[in-house]
Amino acid sequence: MQIGVIGASRCNAEIEQLASAVGREIGSRGAVLICGGLGGVMEFAAKGAKEAGGFTIGILPGTSKEEANGYIDIPIVTGLGHARNVIIAHSSDSIIAISGEHGTLSEIAIGLKLKKTVIGLNTWDIEGVIRAKTAGEAVEKAITVSKGRDI
Amino acid sequence: MQIGVIGASRCNAEIEQLASAVGREIGSRGAVLICGGLGGVMEFAAKGAKEAGGFTIGILPGTSKEEANGYIDIPIVTGLGHARNVIIAHSSDSIIAISGEHGTLSEIAIGLKLKKTVIGLNTWDIEGVIRAKTAGEAVEKAITVSKGRDI
Amino acid sequence: MQIGVIGASRCNAEIEQLASAVGREIGSRGAVLICGGLGGVMEFAAKGAKEAGGFTIGILPGTSKEEANGYIDIPIVTGLGHARNVIIAHSSDSIIAISGEHGTLSEIAIGLKLKKTVIGLNTWDIEGVIRAKTAGEAVEKAITVSKGRDI
Amino acid sequence: MQIGVIGASRCNAEIEQLASAVGREIGSRGAVLICGGLGGVMEFAAKGAKEAGGFTIGILPGTSKEEANGYIDIPIVTGLGHARNVIIAHSSDSIIAISGEHGTLSEIAIGLKLKKTVIGLNTWDIEGVIRAKTAGEAVEKAITVSKGRDI
Repeated sequence: MQIGVIGASRCNAEIEQLASAVGREIGSRGAVLICGGLGGVMEFAAKGAKEAGGFTIGILPGTSKEEANGYIDIPIVTGLGHARNVIIAHSSDSIIAISGEHGTLSEIAIGLKLKKTVIGLNTWDIEGVIRAKTAGEAVEKAITVSKGRDI
Repeated sequence: MQIGVIGASRCNAEIEQLASAVGREIGSRGAVLICGGLGGVMEFAAKGAKEAGGFTIGILPGTSKEEANGYIDIPIVTGLGHARNVIIAHSSDSIIAISGEHGTLSEIAIGLKLKKTVIGLNTWDIEGVIRAKTAGEAVEKAITVSKGRDI
Repeated sequence: MQIGVIGASRCNAEIEQLASAVGREIGSRGAVLICGGLGGVMEFAAKGAKEAGGFTIGILPGTSKEEANGYIDIPIVTGLGHARNVIIAHSSDSIIAISGEHGTLSEIAIGLKLKKTVIGLNTWDIEGVIRAKTAGEAVEKAITVSKGRDI
Repeated sequence: MQIGVIGASRCNAEIEQLASAVGREIGSRGAVLICGGLGGVMEFAAKGAKEAGGFTIGILPGTSKEEANGYIDIPIVTGLGHARNVIIAHSSDSIIAISGEHGTLSEIAIGLKLKKTVIGLNTWDIEGVIRAKTAGEAVEKAITVSKGRDI
């Protein structure tokens, strides 16, 4: 099971904690975390996943694996810039969006366009996004959907 | 000057007319129209541009130029699926969004992420989008911005 | 009819003249020239096409239209790096390869993989490439193939 | 350490055995195997890696993880068609090319263009490719290069 986590590369301490909690839940549930591999939400989610013994994939926009944050097990180096967001959406069984700005919005929209379930934590209020209030609720929903069950 | 027009591949008659009017304005002002090359808003905008003597580019998602609508002068065949939306955003000096669903939302968000001016006609109400009420107003704003002037 | 011209971004004076001659033939025959939009073979081919009254498209690897050479009518800004080569191959009815190094070889191979006719002028000797001895012969063959006829 | 293995999606029994041996060597040496995730050389290399306790990534061209062969631990679903080859090259510390046709040639050329070390087993004779005679020799060279040492 591969769960995508999307969010901004810069965020405040509160969002960092939320991302970290989401990552820990994903890691402790044995799902693979897929993210954009950079800083902010991506880094703290990956950090959380690794703390819980999980496994992390970073789909990087640039041309060097060196841009991956320190918690990425497998860097996928695309050289595609923002077009790499589509790969995150395609590769995730379900997607958790945390806070974020226009980049995150584009990922939410691509996810919905690709008929993926997108679960939102403190993020854009877009028709089609399923809201969650806690990291635990978000990951529970993501895993349930990824198993092919209704939420 | 290259102006992007984004919107859904299926739309009602009212939106078809709006797209057509936007295309005619772009064509009559001598700007190149860039779009996704398929049906709906893309087709009617391209049709309008051609009626006004304009020039049209279609950035296609599939692997054949045959999928272009009948009003595309230059089909750019990407084979990239939804990732082709990023090319539309990058290649446009400014972008006009007409109505649309999640695919259009992703294009709006990518445009804003890339610091392009996005002008909205009857579309998603997203922070950063500049609203216009008529096709003429939208194209006037798009051209003004593309010349590097404030609106 | 859209004819792709591929080759290195740096080349000697002899290859510049060859690229320019190919571009002039394409332009004078009324075909659209598609290239990577940068320097070397791409620039001289586009220059030749413009001198003959032709029309040119540059599929750029970076994120700014400013990187296009001065003879590109329509810059398509991809932000995809080397992955943009696939778009050149997909968008061309036939492809002329001029000299070149590993980048050109990758474009030749992608073209052949996509079942495009690739005509070679002083380039890699790869099975499947149709050799030509002059710019005129190369463009004649490219146009014949693009019309769906055998060569 | 991430080693790419490239080759055709259809191959004969001899090449299947060679791919399988390369995969086993990569797996037994603890390196991650990256491939295109489909059949033929990709499948047998992944099978070999899994038999040796290794870990495998498949960079898929289509839009569904279902197209991955049965030996892929992590499917990366790109939806990019042939443009996904660039991701394989970027994501690999070094690349082993086994036999193959024009698709493999394009991957070899992209790898060389990106300054990656490409080791060839019974494949295209292209300037810049380092030849190896056995699976063991190829993987030994790939790992040595990936550690930043000369071969």
